[in-house]
Amino acid sequence: MRSPVPEYLDEVLSACAKDDSEPAAIALTTVDDAHHGAGDVEHRFAIQSMSKAFAYALAIERLGWDAVHEKIDVEPSGEAFNEISLDSQTGRPHNPMINAGAIATAGLIGSFDTFAEFASQLAGRELEMDDEVYASESKEAHRNLALAHLLAHYGIIDDPVEAVDHYLRQCALSVDVRDLATMASVLANGGVHPDSGERLMAERTAIQVLSVMATCGMYDDAGDWLASVGIPAKSGVSGGIIGVLPGQVGIAVFSPGLDDHGTSIMGVEMMRRMSAEMGMHLMNPGRPSRSALADVLEDGDETVYVLSGDLMFSSAESLLARLIAHPPETERVVFDITRVTEVSDVGRRMVAEARDRLEQDGASVEIRDNDGDDRLGQ
Amino acid sequence: MRSPVPEYLDEVLSACAKDDSEPAAIALTTVDDAHHGAGDVEHRFAIQSMSKAFAYALAIERLGWDAVHEKIDVEPSGEAFNEISLDSQTGRPHNPMINAGAIATAGLIGSFDTFAEFASQLAGRELEMDDEVYASESKEAHRNLALAHLLAHYGIIDDPVEAVDHYLRQCALSVDVRDLATMASVLANGGVHPDSGERLMAERTAIQVLSVMATCGMYDDAGDWLASVGIPAKSGVSGGIIGVLPGQVGIAVFSPGLDDHGTSIMGVEMMRRMSAEMGMHLMNPGRPSRSALADVLEDGDETVYVLSGDLMFSSAESLLARLIAHPPETERVVFDITRVTEVSDVGRRMVAEARDRLEQDGASVEIRDNDGDDRLGQ
Amino acid sequence: MRSPVPEYLDEVLSACAKDDSEPAAIALTTVDDAHHGAGDVEHRFAIQSMSKAFAYALAIERLGWDAVHEKIDVEPSGEAFNEISLDSQTGRPHNPMINAGAIATAGLIGSFDTFAEFASQLAGRELEMDDEVYASESKEAHRNLALAHLLAHYGIIDDPVEAVDHYLRQCALSVDVRDLATMASVLANGGVHPDSGERLMAERTAIQVLSVMATCGMYDDAGDWLASVGIPAKSGVSGGIIGVLPGQVGIAVFSPGLDDHGTSIMGVEMMRRMSAEMGMHLMNPGRPSRSALADVLEDGDETVYVLSGDLMFSSAESLLARLIAHPPETERVVFDITRVTEVSDVGRRMVAEARDRLEQDGASVEIRDNDGDDRLGQ
Amino acid sequence: MRSPVPEYLDEVLSACAKDDSEPAAIALTTVDDAHHGAGDVEHRFAIQSMSKAFAYALAIERLGWDAVHEKIDVEPSGEAFNEISLDSQTGRPHNPMINAGAIATAGLIGSFDTFAEFASQLAGRELEMDDEVYASESKEAHRNLALAHLLAHYGIIDDPVEAVDHYLRQCALSVDVRDLATMASVLANGGVHPDSGERLMAERTAIQVLSVMATCGMYDDAGDWLASVGIPAKSGVSGGIIGVLPGQVGIAVFSPGLDDHGTSIMGVEMMRRMSAEMGMHLMNPGRPSRSALADVLEDGDETVYVLSGDLMFSSAESLLARLIAHPPETERVVFDITRVTEVSDVGRRMVAEARDRLEQDGASVEIRDNDGDDRLGQ
Repeated sequence: MRSPVPEYLDEVLSACAKDDSEPAAIALTTVDDAHHGAGDVEHRFAIQSMSKAFAYALAIERLGWDAVHEKIDVEPSGEAFNEISLDSQTGRPHNPMINAGAIATAGLIGSFDTFAEFASQLAGRELEMDDEVYASESKEAHRNLALAHLLAHYGIIDDPVEAVDHYLRQCALSVDVRDLATMASVLANGGVHPDSGERLMAERTAIQVLSVMATCGMYDDAGDWLASVGIPAKSGVSGGIIGVLPGQVGIAVFSPGLDDHGTSIMGVEMMRRMSAEMGMHLMNPGRPSRSALADVLEDGDETVYVLSGDLMFSSAESLLARLIAHPPETERVVFDITRVTEVSDVGRRMVAEARDRLEQDGASVEIRDNDGDDRLGQ
Repeated sequence: MRSPVPEYLDEVLSACAKDDSEPAAIALTTVDDAHHGAGDVEHRFAIQSMSKAFAYALAIERLGWDAVHEKIDVEPSGEAFNEISLDSQTGRPHNPMINAGAIATAGLIGSFDTFAEFASQLAGRELEMDDEVYASESKEAHRNLALAHLLAHYGIIDDPVEAVDHYLRQCALSVDVRDLATMASVLANGGVHPDSGERLMAERTAIQVLSVMATCGMYDDAGDWLASVGIPAKSGVSGGIIGVLPGQVGIAVFSPGLDDHGTSIMGVEMMRRMSAEMGMHLMNPGRPSRSALADVLEDGDETVYVLSGDLMFSSAESLLARLIAHPPETERVVFDITRVTEVSDVGRRMVAEARDRLEQDGASVEIRDNDGDDRLGQ
Repeated sequence: MRSPVPEYLDEVLSACAKDDSEPAAIALTTVDDAHHGAGDVEHRFAIQSMSKAFAYALAIERLGWDAVHEKIDVEPSGEAFNEISLDSQTGRPHNPMINAGAIATAGLIGSFDTFAEFASQLAGRELEMDDEVYASESKEAHRNLALAHLLAHYGIIDDPVEAVDHYLRQCALSVDVRDLATMASVLANGGVHPDSGERLMAERTAIQVLSVMATCGMYDDAGDWLASVGIPAKSGVSGGIIGVLPGQVGIAVFSPGLDDHGTSIMGVEMMRRMSAEMGMHLMNPGRPSRSALADVLEDGDETVYVLSGDLMFSSAESLLARLIAHPPETERVVFDITRVTEVSDVGRRMVAEARDRLEQDGASVEIRDNDGDDRLGQ
Repeated sequence: MRSPVPEYLDEVLSACAKDDSEPAAIALTTVDDAHHGAGDVEHRFAIQSMSKAFAYALAIERLGWDAVHEKIDVEPSGEAFNEISLDSQTGRPHNPMINAGAIATAGLIGSFDTFAEFASQLAGRELEMDDEVYASESKEAHRNLALAHLLAHYGIIDDPVEAVDHYLRQCALSVDVRDLATMASVLANGGVHPDSGERLMAERTAIQVLSVMATCGMYDDAGDWLASVGIPAKSGVSGGIIGVLPGQVGIAVFSPGLDDHGTSIMGVEMMRRMSAEMGMHLMNPGRPSRSALADVLEDGDETVYVLSGDLMFSSAESLLARLIAHPPETERVVFDITRVTEVSDVGRRMVAEARDRLEQDGASVEIRDNDGDDRLGQ
């Protein structure tokens, strides 16, 4: 049996394509390390501004959140990617997704090799710089040098010429959509690589990067993007866009034709279509489990509460609500969590609390988990 | 047995309180219609800017998304709530969460009574205007009148004096945190009231409102708020803040001391603490179900794939991946979805596709659902 | 004999005219009360923004410079006339030549009748409001009302609706180019009406108004206007422009076709041409007298220093330089100032000083002035 | 006999001095090449931003007005000297008096030696660069390099690093107040050096530079400066200010204590005091000659019109007005211009015209000028 996903992705490509002579590609990597693609998935292009998300993650990992936040803010600027968007008092770039912030990030990391190594770990293969792209952009770097000198003026970075060089090398890393989807999937998976299981960044770092992608990743179109597509994303002028649905999937699309925002026209359409058809919107109320209480079985002298899905705040709450409204009439009570997928901290705390109180009321409580598991920490 | 939630909320209140003489309160309403609160939950105050989220929803419901979007953009402005933040060409307010956008929204709705009725439906009780607040703010309305006349100049609204009057009445509606939590829970629940089950707005409208709250709800602090708290929210100068975790819960906090953004200082702290302790961040990778494939049972001549949690893209994908890697060796195949909580469109499509292909390969496939259910539409 | 000036003005009109069907006119009034005109000098139109210069003068006369300056700044804004150009902290309009500043000025004056009376004194005839213009602009006053409410918000004015009404009435005063040239000539003449000799404002007020016209009168074109035309000026959207050459002449031109700045296209050309051909540029080094020392006559036992032109700093200096370089060899010294046109304060002080010192050196000094004059205050 | 001017300048210094330990100086150079000074007139300091006025003159002289204007606008920016004040579409600096415009000017001139030579000609002695100032500012040039790279990005200049180096050398030229007063006097004298009589720039260039100094020379304080002081000026962060009264005098003051605008506090006070006491305001209505018609002598068969002062538009007009109002009753008419100081083009044209018309009416007209002069071009 073959997976239907590639065919679906082919459909998306065909529906959005405008010009068959241009390369176009989609790739997905799930947090369970499944990989799918369609179109020119081996076509290589420069990572460009999509690198900003990963460089920001690396800077936080190496310097810590406070040190990075002191130099780079996280507010949407409502401006285009190449605006001189610095705080007028402090010179702090508005966010790491505009060029000023990305050059500051490069300056904080301090070494291109460090970034290249990190990006290669994320992609799962050794990424290389496209010398031609680097050479060409080095010649036209006046705006970036202007930003870098301003940053140096305000004491955000030390060596503006080096920071721009590092940034241009970073942007010239050559990738294909499969690389990008895998890199994005690490963010989706809370910082753990879906393939190797290796943690490449703290979960809090991944959350931080995704949040900034959500508010600042699409430049002056950020609000409309989040409202209509609802997937934290970052575009690059090479025609690529990466998107991340937390806990689910990393996505990458590619097609070179750009709109006024410097964003791939067909790439945007592919993302919109997948978001709509796959129900991927971040604000989709159906995403998390609704209720953990799948069943209540009165079995002679015991009452069994069967929980399923994710045991999070709202689902643990449904158990508590039931216990309060209809206290168990038997002395023995069982919480069956064998069907539960995920247990969050708050879910664990709430069920433990319920157990304590039932026991105070004189009941005996058993937690029934899968063999060998003890997810409520009895 | 009593619920531990109110005690937890009491803890949050105590930990964040600075000044016992000031009123303070928290309330939560889950999508399953559970209500919890702590502190001065009956204390009434003006809804102020928190009304903007609901007025925006009402405008979309009544005029349609296109008509509203033509008049009011959805981009973060990076500015304070009272800035004159209009597009310099068209006069279109940057978003509906700043005053200019909210006055435009009031102008589009066209009647205060219509809004009051909608807000009362959301709260589940008849809300009334605080005459004193309305009278006091009507005297100091010069900035809002300035914005309204500009909007009229650009043809966004017709009658600026009426629109401001409507807006001031809207802001003067008197609520407590329980009202606000319930109103917010309708957004969390995709537009359906958790109590009555009545749909008060389209799911797409709720998604739109939550998206705009995420990028624009906290004014010039929007980026930091989303990164650190990760809950779409809206504050009001009366000291209230509402927050919404899609699919889970509506939250309201209240405490009158304000920061420079006009946002409740203690309210922000309470939201931060709950987000951190309850794992409520929108970018939390653990939120949705990770995998639907709970078990694979080889039972003589049939193979049973037991699915649980939410059947969404990423979870359906885990089933497909298994089928591809290890094709079933029996002729009979069962997909057991009795433990599945939610079935998304894409999940349904993907499992149906898997079934077709297995049948093409010669297998017989059975979908096993709860009695009476047929969630995969066989 | 007839004056050649009207024929010259006719030439200017013909050279600049683009469309004979449109009315066009020029008028000049010198500080010696000579009046010249060409074209449709009796054509009436609304004074519009040209009134701003005179209203500003009236406000200073009535409230004093400090009170006016506290409410209205004098800095060029680099913006178009209808921009919301207020100081972001204080709400103080950038200058009195933009609408915000003019509405603030109207608010400070507090009465339209007071302004109409003042404008009538300047014009030398009773000016009346064009009811149709007033009625039409009252209907479209949203932008001005927006500005006025903002000014009220910042405490710059008290009653925004009244201030805008006053401002619109002021702008609707009906004038022809002869009225405007005469009004402008009062500014040229340091505040004294060239006809009646009546002082209508302090000299310092006239200087203040002309300075603000020079930097702010032509909106976002102020710098280019001063550099290329060099005449403090103010335009109105009715198609008129007034210009003032201090100490010489008030100018008014009219033609209804407007450019993007809302300024008369043909009016600008006429002003440019007259400036170039008549050497009217404010920075023209030839404007003031170069030297007062017309001749030195050694006549037996006395030396006569014949002074002519204006006795100002630079010209008095030329006398002193001569006295120092070549001290008089006779005991009797005469300063003949019968040919001197103007005596400035500094000129008087310097010549008096020279006289004292010569007398200390033993000389006897006589000041020879026209019969009955004693301009050096002996 | 000694001149009283130095004593007056000493008075100004004493009255404005705040701290005797700091150097302070004033110098004046008239268009008649008189030199006066008070205080530490030999104290050397870097010319800094005062060089901008002269560099702008040089650029216009070498490239022509059009080529310079294409690259550098002449509009006040309402911003501080170090703002990034470029047109958002074209990158054209708002004016040549802010750093961006001055760096563009340096780039247009293309060679520091060329500027140093020109500045030395203006000062009348060979000016040298202060190596220490240059070395120190080269280390802190990040903001200027940022501006220069932006200019290069927009194609305003070619080599940003070279342009900044040139600009920093230009700013480090070492001068004293006497040098500056003499340099300023060339602008006052329409481009002709008062000492050598050599023309160093076209009169139109001097007018252009003075106009831009008037609107843009004092940065965000330009409007208030022109209104209160009324002297086109340019300040430098070394503590110097130059001022120019067209046709009269070049002024330089110096004192190192700076205000928030980067302008000498005591320097400003000295300029204000001299302006007020010497009647130097550009808008002073008393500056030019009021009337050329000093006398009308009926002498038997001839009428002699005695003209004096400057023969400009307004003064020639007074002659024409008299001829029209009271036509001469004799056949012979004499225009005695022996006392006339200056004859402008328009004055010449107007008197010539008057003569033609009188002759057409049958009169015989004689122009009586000083021996050997023929200033009306008979």
